[in-house]
Amino acid sequence: MAYEEWTKELKDNYLETVAWRRHLHAHPEPSFEEVETARFVREKLESFGLDDIRTDVGNGYGIVGKINGKYPGPTIALRADFDALRVTEEVNLSFKSKNEGIMHACGHDGHTAALLSVAKVMARHKDELHGNIVLLHQHAEEVLPGGAKSMVEDGALEGVDYVFGIHLGATQPLNKVFYNVKFGSANSDSFLMKIQGKGGHGAAPHDTHDALTVGTQIVTNLQQIVSRMTDPVKPAVLTFAGFQSGGEAYNIIADSTEIKGTVRTLHEEVQHKVERKLREMSEHIAAAYDSTIELNYTKGYPAIENTPEVVEKVKQSFLSVFPENEVGEVKESMGGEDFAYFLKEKPGAFLRVGAQPPEKEDAYPHHHPKFEIDERALLRSGEVFLAIISTYLKG
Amino acid sequence: MAYEEWTKELKDNYLETVAWRRHLHAHPEPSFEEVETARFVREKLESFGLDDIRTDVGNGYGIVGKINGKYPGPTIALRADFDALRVTEEVNLSFKSKNEGIMHACGHDGHTAALLSVAKVMARHKDELHGNIVLLHQHAEEVLPGGAKSMVEDGALEGVDYVFGIHLGATQPLNKVFYNVKFGSANSDSFLMKIQGKGGHGAAPHDTHDALTVGTQIVTNLQQIVSRMTDPVKPAVLTFAGFQSGGEAYNIIADSTEIKGTVRTLHEEVQHKVERKLREMSEHIAAAYDSTIELNYTKGYPAIENTPEVVEKVKQSFLSVFPENEVGEVKESMGGEDFAYFLKEKPGAFLRVGAQPPEKEDAYPHHHPKFEIDERALLRSGEVFLAIISTYLKG
Amino acid sequence: MAYEEWTKELKDNYLETVAWRRHLHAHPEPSFEEVETARFVREKLESFGLDDIRTDVGNGYGIVGKINGKYPGPTIALRADFDALRVTEEVNLSFKSKNEGIMHACGHDGHTAALLSVAKVMARHKDELHGNIVLLHQHAEEVLPGGAKSMVEDGALEGVDYVFGIHLGATQPLNKVFYNVKFGSANSDSFLMKIQGKGGHGAAPHDTHDALTVGTQIVTNLQQIVSRMTDPVKPAVLTFAGFQSGGEAYNIIADSTEIKGTVRTLHEEVQHKVERKLREMSEHIAAAYDSTIELNYTKGYPAIENTPEVVEKVKQSFLSVFPENEVGEVKESMGGEDFAYFLKEKPGAFLRVGAQPPEKEDAYPHHHPKFEIDERALLRSGEVFLAIISTYLKG
Amino acid sequence: MAYEEWTKELKDNYLETVAWRRHLHAHPEPSFEEVETARFVREKLESFGLDDIRTDVGNGYGIVGKINGKYPGPTIALRADFDALRVTEEVNLSFKSKNEGIMHACGHDGHTAALLSVAKVMARHKDELHGNIVLLHQHAEEVLPGGAKSMVEDGALEGVDYVFGIHLGATQPLNKVFYNVKFGSANSDSFLMKIQGKGGHGAAPHDTHDALTVGTQIVTNLQQIVSRMTDPVKPAVLTFAGFQSGGEAYNIIADSTEIKGTVRTLHEEVQHKVERKLREMSEHIAAAYDSTIELNYTKGYPAIENTPEVVEKVKQSFLSVFPENEVGEVKESMGGEDFAYFLKEKPGAFLRVGAQPPEKEDAYPHHHPKFEIDERALLRSGEVFLAIISTYLKG
Repeated sequence: MAYEEWTKELKDNYLETVAWRRHLHAHPEPSFEEVETARFVREKLESFGLDDIRTDVGNGYGIVGKINGKYPGPTIALRADFDALRVTEEVNLSFKSKNEGIMHACGHDGHTAALLSVAKVMARHKDELHGNIVLLHQHAEEVLPGGAKSMVEDGALEGVDYVFGIHLGATQPLNKVFYNVKFGSANSDSFLMKIQGKGGHGAAPHDTHDALTVGTQIVTNLQQIVSRMTDPVKPAVLTFAGFQSGGEAYNIIADSTEIKGTVRTLHEEVQHKVERKLREMSEHIAAAYDSTIELNYTKGYPAIENTPEVVEKVKQSFLSVFPENEVGEVKESMGGEDFAYFLKEKPGAFLRVGAQPPEKEDAYPHHHPKFEIDERALLRSGEVFLAIISTYLKG
Repeated sequence: MAYEEWTKELKDNYLETVAWRRHLHAHPEPSFEEVETARFVREKLESFGLDDIRTDVGNGYGIVGKINGKYPGPTIALRADFDALRVTEEVNLSFKSKNEGIMHACGHDGHTAALLSVAKVMARHKDELHGNIVLLHQHAEEVLPGGAKSMVEDGALEGVDYVFGIHLGATQPLNKVFYNVKFGSANSDSFLMKIQGKGGHGAAPHDTHDALTVGTQIVTNLQQIVSRMTDPVKPAVLTFAGFQSGGEAYNIIADSTEIKGTVRTLHEEVQHKVERKLREMSEHIAAAYDSTIELNYTKGYPAIENTPEVVEKVKQSFLSVFPENEVGEVKESMGGEDFAYFLKEKPGAFLRVGAQPPEKEDAYPHHHPKFEIDERALLRSGEVFLAIISTYLKG
Repeated sequence: MAYEEWTKELKDNYLETVAWRRHLHAHPEPSFEEVETARFVREKLESFGLDDIRTDVGNGYGIVGKINGKYPGPTIALRADFDALRVTEEVNLSFKSKNEGIMHACGHDGHTAALLSVAKVMARHKDELHGNIVLLHQHAEEVLPGGAKSMVEDGALEGVDYVFGIHLGATQPLNKVFYNVKFGSANSDSFLMKIQGKGGHGAAPHDTHDALTVGTQIVTNLQQIVSRMTDPVKPAVLTFAGFQSGGEAYNIIADSTEIKGTVRTLHEEVQHKVERKLREMSEHIAAAYDSTIELNYTKGYPAIENTPEVVEKVKQSFLSVFPENEVGEVKESMGGEDFAYFLKEKPGAFLRVGAQPPEKEDAYPHHHPKFEIDERALLRSGEVFLAIISTYLKG
Repeated sequence: MAYEEWTKELKDNYLETVAWRRHLHAHPEPSFEEVETARFVREKLESFGLDDIRTDVGNGYGIVGKINGKYPGPTIALRADFDALRVTEEVNLSFKSKNEGIMHACGHDGHTAALLSVAKVMARHKDELHGNIVLLHQHAEEVLPGGAKSMVEDGALEGVDYVFGIHLGATQPLNKVFYNVKFGSANSDSFLMKIQGKGGHGAAPHDTHDALTVGTQIVTNLQQIVSRMTDPVKPAVLTFAGFQSGGEAYNIIADSTEIKGTVRTLHEEVQHKVERKLREMSEHIAAAYDSTIELNYTKGYPAIENTPEVVEKVKQSFLSVFPENEVGEVKESMGGEDFAYFLKEKPGAFLRVGAQPPEKEDAYPHHHPKFEIDERALLRSGEVFLAIISTYLKG
């Protein structure tokens, strides 16, 4: 069977794959600034003999490569994002970030290396394929508006029938492949609220409209949006991430308060209700205190909605090649991911591959300065892609 | 000097005064139902030889007696209230209440006996007076709308130049006479609020507008009326005395909540602000939760405002006849008293006479089933009235 | 095929089934008092020729009947509950409740009639069965501690391999059959909290520990248990269903508050965390106000956990006999059901059958005085049971 | 009479007084840095012929001058503070601040000029005095620990019998002299609280202890300290002046919150209760959320307690020289003033002199960048000091 031969080659290339990942890790670039990263990817794809490579796709340095199979059949797209974060690395590695204040703290270096390793193998085996492979090397996943939406708008999914993505999980058991039947991430919105009261001297609160206490009451009252106003079986998170009111003085009553935060939901009607109540309740409560609010609510990435039939199909595929206990459903998460935009266009699935170093019990979470992955997960990531290819393109 | 002779007679009558008080204590009648009490007072006044006695004054059994002095001069009114409370007495006294569920638990029996004892003495000495004495035996002080306002409207203060009242204090040191320079009680308003939400099953809060949590947020938010919105040097109290929501069921979300309470203030502008914010904030907060409120706000007795010059004058008078440490200023209280209506018409003063049994360290407060007074304070109360009479009517 | 013949007989018996249901509806009996209902069921089962009938099973009038098939095979248990509610019926029906204040307002009359109709058919066809049927006519589902647990303890599931139950849904589309892959109801706990402060006069809050405002702060603070402390993808409900503080007086500060409510969860760790934080937070917040709490927390019915493989199997069975659009997954609910105890012992599934009268857009919910079902759902309920029987006992 | 002759000279010197004030206004120096200001004051006092001048008194540039009368008698101290604020002036005046970011925005320049003008007059008339005058030119009133306390400790009040101070009031009617019978300012404490929770990702609140929402609950709960826990007739203010939690990110849950503010009280027992409850409640509420607090509470200036007999005496003195409607009692304020330390040592009074420009309806408050005084109040301030001198030192 093809899959077995392909994975053998993948394993043979493992050290090279690790080298690619380490190069990317040492040279991270933040979202929308991935010049050298994109060049690296393009050169690799060219070196594999791909002749259909588009660069600068979408609103940044996105790359779309294509491996056309010999036989007719469906086209599947495989996505790896390649941007890094503005985080200062605190892990002492031989391949530690050389770019001050920038770090691959989310594993995108691994995604990219794994997809390249798959491309290298499949470029050699394109004559076995009944259908085609589109490689989506995406820029700017970490920062709104993200790269995915613009790549879709720029035609990256033209002719594509199914789309797949993976994400390494630094706190998930090594090499375990996780799927969600439906939701793979959450609608991830953000808001900024300015409360305007009337300041004054701390000894005379009755001459003011104390914007600080108004702010605390808004935060307190709005807890009920999640606790009482949304369907308990439809998840919602309303996080206040910042609250700034007053300054250095101990005796001045603040005239304004700034509050910011994020709203996470899975269902559109819940998203709408949270936004509506966030606005309505804040206005009413501010009015109770003779104050006003200004609210900027920004819709972020939508929730990933996997295609259940596709999930079922690739799950069966994984079960046929991986040990049963290395494939499992994972509960929904309220994180955000712009892979959602690809799945809004085409059926497909977003999968997670465990990358927690087995010896580390309390692995650091993503985006942490001490974030780390076990590189063996790169091989498993490649195998996941190959299993998908063999399922859809075996003819 | 007249005062000394008068007080000698007062002392001679002390046992009789105590007997009167005990008779009243054993036969308490609640506000607006003081038939026998009024008859007792009238008969006593008649027995002293008063020929100018009006009964059924105002909206109840109020009595106004008059002692006309021989010489021209000012007219001073002295007031004692005579209604009892719907409290079941828990003190074992030989003269314990014989009327089940009714008790003189506020000392009005003592006020009445003391004023009667003064009337008896002064009826005999009217030929010494430069001016006249009006005796205000008032019904219904404990229950809105009270008797004082209606007695004023019914002419009880016609021809009166100054008005005085006393109140025994069960937790104030025996025989000490207390005055306030200005405020002697508070504006005492009450309110009843009905919050209307939308009920439902306890497992599905998102289909309801939970009137219980709305109620708790209204109570919580409205704390700021007193803590932030009123001048710290102008006292205000907003007490929520009742909160009823839901019933027997553990799993039904209530569709309504009933809240009641009292508002106490000294200054009119604070009273207005508290009422206004109580209404506005409750409406806004209910609206934040898609609910509505209905608010009934009832203005109760106004604050007693003593006349500072009169207070100064009687204070000097007291200092001339009582030991210096038995006369003192007392801090304002947020209690309610309808004597305020008399002071809205005429200058005067409301005084307190300590009646705490010296051996009782933790005396029970007014309105308590174990309320008790030291009867020696009846004599001091009479002396207070006599000192006032001698000050204003000595010619 | 057997199923088709059986359902033909079921349809032939439809009017009789309806008559049974109307008889039960007219003679409702509350939980643990179902004397006549149990007699009715027993007599019917006897009339079908069942010779293995146990009565008074568990802590009440539970009945277990058995239909032994001719051939060896698995034993499946089918459950219908038969208690009514203390609700006064407000629907004008020819078969309206004759028992004042009692009403079949949850459809248990329909469950019972449907299961009896199945028993009648299968008693005649027992020679076709490869395995056996146990009929679980359960008392007291509506009131803790319920009947299910005690029936299990009394051996009702001895020898049983699978257990199934149905519930009619008055607000679900007529004849649609609903399943949950996993959770079919919630852990349904209840609590009663007594807050002890120190009462006093409404004008002197500083001399009290105001139990009313403490209560409102507890309710307000505890919103964060659901909004911030539980995993957003693991549902939790904390409903405060009752709040009683203070009485008739407008000016007395309450010395205590009584709060009650329900906690609904699906996952045991969430259930534990909510209970723990409910206790801890209430204690801490009361302490902040120099008050104390006493909390009685009662664990109620556990969550129904269906057996996914069984659900999949019966779903396929339903799809083979019902139109595809009449079979569907339903989202989890936070309601409570003591069928959970049967599923804790044996694999199985709990199913719902839509019974909303098609012409009623806004059907009244369960437990409402105007609750109504469309009786055609009785036939569909019988078909559901027959489909299950044919799946498991066809040999 | 001496007073009339003195005030005539004061008026003759008015333009010079204004010139001094404008010089000081143009050259403001912040607390503890008043080098040039102190030099200016010393040189003026020397120029008046004072031979008993102490400099660098206390913890800064305090100056104590003495005018010894010819005849024996009491010694009275007159105080004027001379420090400025770190405020950037926004008024366009010919004598606008030349020191960037520093401004006499509280009127201390006026206090100083007025006291100097009094010193000049009295130095010429010392032979008429029965007693002595001590001039307290105080540094650093605006910033803790203030200068007053250290000047007292450094002997500034040695031999002094009475002490007096004035404060110009930019929002009080021009030339009106105000007194308080008792409290003239408030105990002015400050606090800084650090709440320590546990941060995390905004999508997973259940893995954190959200320090931001804990902070909002602390602010909300603590409103009851003022609204329910302190005697309504004993003023208290608890102002939260700063609330900082979280940073730039919209999706990070903060691990800490910093809250600061001020506590204002008049009575020691209220001060103690507010501090105690501030600490206790914050600890309990933080604990409810598995968080901790660290609280630094700093006692600031105590409340000014005037000597009632002295107030009465100077009030009568003012009434004998000013129009009756230009002398009045003012309600207590919750502001802070370190003149309190002088009054803790000696009897005396702190007086306010209205300085609102009559044409400005909405005058800017003290400490505002647009703060302004009407300079005619300098003359009235001098007259107030002269009236006091003539009362106490006329022999």
